Amino acid sequence: MLPQRLAIVGLGLLGGSLALALRRVRPSLRIEGIDIDPRTLEQALKAGAIDAGHSIEAAPLDGCDVVVLAQPAGALLDSVLPVAAGMRHGAVLSDVCGAKEAVCARGAQQDRVIFVGAHPMAGTEFRGFTAASASLFDGCTVALCPPPGAGQDQELAVRQVRDLWLAAGAAGVIDVAPSEHDRAVTFASHLPYLAAAMVVASLEDASDAAPLARDLAAGGFRDTTRLAGDGTVGGAAALNRHVPSAAKELAEKLRQLADRLSKDPEKALDQLGKLAESRRGMKLPPRK
Amino acid sequence: MLPQRLAIVGLGLLGGSLALALRRVRPSLRIEGIDIDPRTLEQALKAGAIDAGHSIEAAPLDGCDVVVLAQPAGALLDSVLPVAAGMRHGAVLSDVCGAKEAVCARGAQQDRVIFVGAHPMAGTEFRGFTAASASLFDGCTVALCPPPGAGQDQELAVRQVRDLWLAAGAAGVIDVAPSEHDRAVTFASHLPYLAAAMVVASLEDASDAAPLARDLAAGGFRDTTRLAGDGTVGGAAALNRHVPSAAKELAEKLRQLADRLSKDPEKALDQLGKLAESRRGMKLPPRK
Repeated sequence: MLPQRLAIVGLGLLGGSLALALRRVRPSLRIEGIDIDPRTLEQALKAGAIDAGHSIEAAPLDGCDVVVLAQPAGALLDSVLPVAAGMRHGAVLSDVCGAKEAVCARGAQQDRVIFVGAHPMAGTEFRGFTAASASLFDGCTVALCPPPGAGQDQELAVRQVRDLWLAAGAAGVIDVAPSEHDRAVTFASHLPYLAAAMVVASLEDASDAAPLARDLAAGGFRDTTRLAGDGTVGGAAALNRHVPSAAKELAEKLRQLADRLSKDPEKALDQLGKLAESRRGMKLPPRK
Repeated sequence: MLPQRLAIVGLGLLGGSLALALRRVRPSLRIEGIDIDPRTLEQALKAGAIDAGHSIEAAPLDGCDVVVLAQPAGALLDSVLPVAAGMRHGAVLSDVCGAKEAVCARGAQQDRVIFVGAHPMAGTEFRGFTAASASLFDGCTVALCPPPGAGQDQELAVRQVRDLWLAAGAAGVIDVAPSEHDRAVTFASHLPYLAAAMVVASLEDASDAAPLARDLAAGGFRDTTRLAGDGTVGGAAALNRHVPSAAKELAEKLRQLADRLSKDPEKALDQLGKLAESRRGMKLPPRK
């Protein structure tokens, strides 16, 4: 069940890809595109991703069945209440943010529309509508946070958001509570991101070694740090209350490993060997 | 200038790939394959990578112009002196180890053969001869540590090892002192590896969140932790004296970032944004 008229706020990588993906399977769906950058609206119109482009102030939100917020995390959070206030009673508001507790709590502060949080587990290190692709969500998993309160309206809203993502190419949708989501994503996404960023920072700060290190950097460095180039994960990580303590624990693990490498390398190598085996045994989505 | 007769000790990913790559460009080169595993020797013979397979005890080392050590780091280090002792005077001994100070120092403990340390900056997370490929080194950089003492024999030895890697597909060879190499590789390879491994450990240890985190793990987790599955980097990292202190500094960076994320998220996001930009600006080898 897809809506008749959908608005997407923020036509970057995720919002732009959602528009392109839905257009592919349902050409007749009316998609209102909203972005702060007029050039982005132009690009999206030219690509046929949206039917019309608007600033948020001038957007026909009250005529839409579903609105999806797809801005960077901070702006997304700030827009939940103003956007909800501009929609018609009983419509569905959703989002794509990688942190769900803060966003879903904000959505629950109003009862004009039904807020259903969503988080598609897909992305690349490239940004903006120019990086958007109709196939970005193909085969991905979408985490979905049903709203509190069990009624027919809530169920219908959840079904609409689920169908939207399945139509956009997702292989599956997992219903999950916001706090459970944020804790899991801490390990699946936010810690990997922070570790990648700090590995880049280490290279930058080692000014004596950096030029040669760059020359010698190969596929291992490239892949480990790819996520550090993603400008969008940080915003979600900053909204995730589980991140600071988990990052401190990761730092402590690393410190202990460093200690072990100098004092008991056999034991360190034993630990690393076991982790290598367990990493090789993990089922992870293939490269596209 | 390639040797007439080459021996490769250890026919795993790197040694096996070197044999296959050289075979491709110089079918007439005689390659003696040496491995502790008879099945590996069989596979390498069957693939035409080597002309004959031997145990190290029975290998005709004294008939070879060049011998390349390609075992796991610890075994490689232990074999430098015994292998050198079995070679003929003035021949060339080289290796592929990712830590060069310890290995080159071991090589300099004898003067029977000329030891030229080398480190091809290539690899995958897969292991063994079955993962070897004639194209593994295509386009890669090889770090090369010329032996101490400047004479004609040393120069000739360096040229032989350089030509070997260029013939195997390397795009370039960088001459570098062992300690300079190890310090640069600390940031280019060993820290990325240790960070990746600890991100895997964090996921494993978060037993409450791990099942859902695995379901939600996407490309970011996959790429950040790929290197953790590489069973060979750890051995080199454990031989690298620069690693423990650098890993402690990385841990401290991560701890400070965690602190900033809870106390001053704006500042944390500012730092992460700058790192994202600098990561996107890095020239790194493309995926194959």
